[in-house]
Amino acid sequence: MAKNTNIRISLPAVCFVWQIAMIILFGVFVRYNEESDTRWIEHRRRKNISTNLENDFYYRYPSFQDVHVMIFVGFGFLMTFLKRYSFGGVGFNFLIAAFGIQWALLMQGWFHYLDDDGKIKIGVENLINADFCVAGCLIAYGACLGKVSPVQLMVLTLFGVTLFAVEEYIILELLHAKDPGGSMVIHTFGAYYGLTISWVLYRPMLSQSKHLQGSVYHSDVFAMIGTLFLWMYWPSFNSAIADHGDGQHRAVINTYLALAASVLTTFAISSISQKHGKLDMVHIQNATLAGGVAMGTASEFMITPYGSLIVGFCSSIISTFGYIFLTPFMEKTLKIQDTCGIHNLHAMPGVIGGIVGAITAASASESVYGQEGLINTFDFKEAVANRTANIQGGYQAAGLFVAIAFGLVGGALVGGILKLPIWGDPADANCFDDEVYWEVPEDEDENMLSSHPNMNHARGMPDAYQRSHV
Amino acid sequence: MAKNTNIRISLPAVCFVWQIAMIILFGVFVRYNEESDTRWIEHRRRKNISTNLENDFYYRYPSFQDVHVMIFVGFGFLMTFLKRYSFGGVGFNFLIAAFGIQWALLMQGWFHYLDDDGKIKIGVENLINADFCVAGCLIAYGACLGKVSPVQLMVLTLFGVTLFAVEEYIILELLHAKDPGGSMVIHTFGAYYGLTISWVLYRPMLSQSKHLQGSVYHSDVFAMIGTLFLWMYWPSFNSAIADHGDGQHRAVINTYLALAASVLTTFAISSISQKHGKLDMVHIQNATLAGGVAMGTASEFMITPYGSLIVGFCSSIISTFGYIFLTPFMEKTLKIQDTCGIHNLHAMPGVIGGIVGAITAASASESVYGQEGLINTFDFKEAVANRTANIQGGYQAAGLFVAIAFGLVGGALVGGILKLPIWGDPADANCFDDEVYWEVPEDEDENMLSSHPNMNHARGMPDAYQRSHV
Amino acid sequence: MAKNTNIRISLPAVCFVWQIAMIILFGVFVRYNEESDTRWIEHRRRKNISTNLENDFYYRYPSFQDVHVMIFVGFGFLMTFLKRYSFGGVGFNFLIAAFGIQWALLMQGWFHYLDDDGKIKIGVENLINADFCVAGCLIAYGACLGKVSPVQLMVLTLFGVTLFAVEEYIILELLHAKDPGGSMVIHTFGAYYGLTISWVLYRPMLSQSKHLQGSVYHSDVFAMIGTLFLWMYWPSFNSAIADHGDGQHRAVINTYLALAASVLTTFAISSISQKHGKLDMVHIQNATLAGGVAMGTASEFMITPYGSLIVGFCSSIISTFGYIFLTPFMEKTLKIQDTCGIHNLHAMPGVIGGIVGAITAASASESVYGQEGLINTFDFKEAVANRTANIQGGYQAAGLFVAIAFGLVGGALVGGILKLPIWGDPADANCFDDEVYWEVPEDEDENMLSSHPNMNHARGMPDAYQRSHV
Repeated sequence: MAKNTNIRISLPAVCFVWQIAMIILFGVFVRYNEESDTRWIEHRRRKNISTNLENDFYYRYPSFQDVHVMIFVGFGFLMTFLKRYSFGGVGFNFLIAAFGIQWALLMQGWFHYLDDDGKIKIGVENLINADFCVAGCLIAYGACLGKVSPVQLMVLTLFGVTLFAVEEYIILELLHAKDPGGSMVIHTFGAYYGLTISWVLYRPMLSQSKHLQGSVYHSDVFAMIGTLFLWMYWPSFNSAIADHGDGQHRAVINTYLALAASVLTTFAISSISQKHGKLDMVHIQNATLAGGVAMGTASEFMITPYGSLIVGFCSSIISTFGYIFLTPFMEKTLKIQDTCGIHNLHAMPGVIGGIVGAITAASASESVYGQEGLINTFDFKEAVANRTANIQGGYQAAGLFVAIAFGLVGGALVGGILKLPIWGDPADANCFDDEVYWEVPEDEDENMLSSHPNMNHARGMPDAYQRSHV
Repeated sequence: MAKNTNIRISLPAVCFVWQIAMIILFGVFVRYNEESDTRWIEHRRRKNISTNLENDFYYRYPSFQDVHVMIFVGFGFLMTFLKRYSFGGVGFNFLIAAFGIQWALLMQGWFHYLDDDGKIKIGVENLINADFCVAGCLIAYGACLGKVSPVQLMVLTLFGVTLFAVEEYIILELLHAKDPGGSMVIHTFGAYYGLTISWVLYRPMLSQSKHLQGSVYHSDVFAMIGTLFLWMYWPSFNSAIADHGDGQHRAVINTYLALAASVLTTFAISSISQKHGKLDMVHIQNATLAGGVAMGTASEFMITPYGSLIVGFCSSIISTFGYIFLTPFMEKTLKIQDTCGIHNLHAMPGVIGGIVGAITAASASESVYGQEGLINTFDFKEAVANRTANIQGGYQAAGLFVAIAFGLVGGALVGGILKLPIWGDPADANCFDDEVYWEVPEDEDENMLSSHPNMNHARGMPDAYQRSHV
Repeated sequence: MAKNTNIRISLPAVCFVWQIAMIILFGVFVRYNEESDTRWIEHRRRKNISTNLENDFYYRYPSFQDVHVMIFVGFGFLMTFLKRYSFGGVGFNFLIAAFGIQWALLMQGWFHYLDDDGKIKIGVENLINADFCVAGCLIAYGACLGKVSPVQLMVLTLFGVTLFAVEEYIILELLHAKDPGGSMVIHTFGAYYGLTISWVLYRPMLSQSKHLQGSVYHSDVFAMIGTLFLWMYWPSFNSAIADHGDGQHRAVINTYLALAASVLTTFAISSISQKHGKLDMVHIQNATLAGGVAMGTASEFMITPYGSLIVGFCSSIISTFGYIFLTPFMEKTLKIQDTCGIHNLHAMPGVIGGIVGAITAASASESVYGQEGLINTFDFKEAVANRTANIQGGYQAAGLFVAIAFGLVGGALVGGILKLPIWGDPADANCFDDEVYWEVPEDEDENMLSSHPNMNHARGMPDAYQRSHV
């Protein structure tokens, strides 16, 4: 029986109501901060800032733009790999990210950036954090790709951003854990949030759309666009909100190296796992990124260059094996259908990242960091002025558990909400098919008239036709 | 009757002659400015500039590269959506942009950057402005996509850049209007220029190539590459030549927010306008960008974050409705064939941007901007030292009319020139077909042997067949 | 007879062993430099550096990211043009680049960055140089595309990086030649290295895979992604390690102009060379980049804007004619099979760049550069304090010969090694086919059951098969 997937009322309603709500809330709460306000010039004079270059804009904007590309092109195109769900992959990614960043500016603002006058003062750092925040929801989308309606995704994002802001506040501000690249805050939380939702929404008859669950040649090439932009810009992701100076510099080096090591190990495991050693695009598109995820927490630490290589080396081995053994196991046994394999790309490497961060922090010493360096890197100031590296390690570990807990509990709750039969999600037989929510190009409809299979065949594809003429 | 579309003489002739002309003119007029000359070090000492970072290069280069990507990949791939005109879309965009930036450096140089010694001194800001200038011509190309020859496009660009430099001079220097993101100077002018040309070149029998006027599945995904790079980098576009410090910072925030709001409203209108609420890729690919266009004039102003959201909200509603109702109406009634719907993406949002700019400027006050802030933001110095915000609003409005006038009159003149039967433009039946100007991969040539329209038709599209079995 | 292309043991073995070797060598040799170390703050105080902005990170990171995109997306997608080798094009590019940058950090480190304590201290400049270094090997890959196994590519890269580091040391440090954009060091060396290897590995029966040596419509569009990202970011490539301040600024302007001129001349020659003046995508995808290659050595020099236009103008004419006449000639007569035509895009323009650099250097004068400017631009300090511009020109020329010599001799040696029958390279009939080393989407595997050639052809296509099963 076909479900009612008509979203002509629900989607526009949700988009309009929420966008208008954003406008009202921004009107009440959001203002420019002193660096993006025309009074910056007075501020400069007051603070004796010698040059406009000291405006945080010039420290962070290039990194921001790289992160921005990762969110919209990176995540978006990585999800175009399905043969008939490329519109939904890149299109819905676009929709929920654009909504999420607005809601994130408010949620994170209330928790982190509320000024004495009750206003949220925003600058480029807020834009970066908003992008980070939606990344968690986009990861969650990866588990549900092709099985949910855009309305469900909007709900997933509304709650996802809310949960994110709270767990982020607990981990970064209350526990005072460091997580500049979000191994815990973004990847671990986002992955378990999405996996739990997918578990709640388990579809026993999903095999009915099995024929659409694969890729085609060109959709795999499209997905590589996403992979490469994520891979190339990940050093910016892990350094975007790191400390000015050596902090950003070191985060870039560590991430660059971890990612480089990830590529070789992914190719190795992918080849060894297949008959004739043939490579699998699924592994190349995903596991090569594990090093970036796993370096998110420790990116600013003095983990050393070879330490970064080791992190990338190990995380990609685990990630690739995850795609080979764990994903099928989870679907069969645990009833978790994970379309993009986020458990392998985000959950496990994210947890590794949290553990690496805890260990690296615990073993930090003045002999390596220098006295000032240690204080600056871990912000051992004010409330935590007398915290030691050892203790910091413990708090880092605690942060990891908070992230997991928020993912599991939050995912269960939101999954329950999304299970309601009101959201216009597709029937099992119509999953992974853009036909459900998109007007696909006319010409394809016209072909419905055709009845001659072989002809159609040749017509279908330029390549095919030509070859039969060579 | 097939037209003569042989451009073997005309295209090479135009390219060669004009490139050689560029070399000669650059030899006579163009030199490095003091920041890109080896004497910069002496200049630094003279001016007591403490660091190389104060070289404008470091303020503007990251933004320049983002703008550069928008011009070549953004505009280029946005125009690959047609099923058989992707080569022409991205290829001719490449050709005319590469010519246009050279001609723009000269034209804008003569009007804005002429030094006492009669030389044009160029630096990174000139490169940005040259990219801006060709954007106007690329917008115009959008209206003519698939219906003109590359030779015609070179002519369109030669005159388009010339007209641009003049109207820009009038609007920015004589009227002293502000337009950092070019809502008026770039988008309004470019759109009306292109629409008028398309009106003059009206093709009554264009329906003969109707079967090629649509997209196919993968060409729509290619077009999303263009959309997303335009969307992501638009904050750089509207801030690239804004004031150092808070100016660039604020322009980024305003544009980022306007674009975010545009996405939700576009999805809403697109869904509500279709049976079953299915989304239309044409809207997603275009109307989501309206907020960036509409924020071009006011990007630097203290429009407030929620003000930016409102601008994005409204402009995308109008833009999406334009695609649904206006474009068909314009083609039928006004005889304007607008391939890419630039009237909806650039003309209307551009005009909105001009109006928003005028209103925001007119309502600017010292209480909001601060005394210095107001002066800096609107450059109330020298000649216009005693201009008030109110008066500025009037001049902004005047600028908008100048842009429209130049677009309409210039388009009519250039359209007349392009109507001459000497440019090798395609016959109505051969529009939107790369076969005319490109060596398309072998296999497809063989398809041309067929005379059977339907056959031809179906072969056109890779993804055709699938649907007939779903 | 089909060859044994099973790489299930060899590829994983090479990847694992080499990655572990990297980890060990990095552990022994590589550390953070003073700008990426937590002790940066102490270093700042010692050196009286007023702001974190003076950290080289802020001078170079944006350029680094652009270069990074060129290496992975630019080179990668440029090599996706073949109809059935897109996976191999972008995938193997990814593999060897990720290995190459690690090996390059070590090799270049030992030659250029070895500290008194025997450690290689790395920062952002090292990352840029590592990317530059692998570019040489990726160019070489272009000549062998589709005809070698990934294991051979790993060997090609291991030796390629090693040779690169040595010739770079000789050219830049011993000869003290300038080559910021690597016309000689990167392009000339890489191209002759690859061409010689391809000559040694000559395949007389390659025509057996002729039907796979072309492109299809969408693979040509994919390749344009590579072309455009190379074209847009080339100014960053030629300026990334240029002098702070005017050096980087001027390098950007010169490269931007040379590339603009290249586009027009490429379109001209491409059109004039074809019946009916139809444009050839091969030329547009490649020869438009010749200007960037040819501007690599002289990018920092006072070559003047029109000089840059002339360089782009000439190099693209030669490059395009190369594709039309030289490539077929080389294959027939010289037995050099050059899949991507690197001789036209890198070898010839690279040599032109070296010559242009020598002439420009030789004709440099204090009247043009200013006394300080001349010294700074050519680093006439320490050992070469009393070198004149004339003499510098001679050393530049010498550098060009060193690059060519290393390419030819190195290529011959490595080609000999790669000729061994142990590397799992494909049979002549299986070249340019992803089937050999990749798990192509399921539907295609099933197609392999078929034995009927024509059928096979039709089945070659992912879309085809799946559809007939829906």
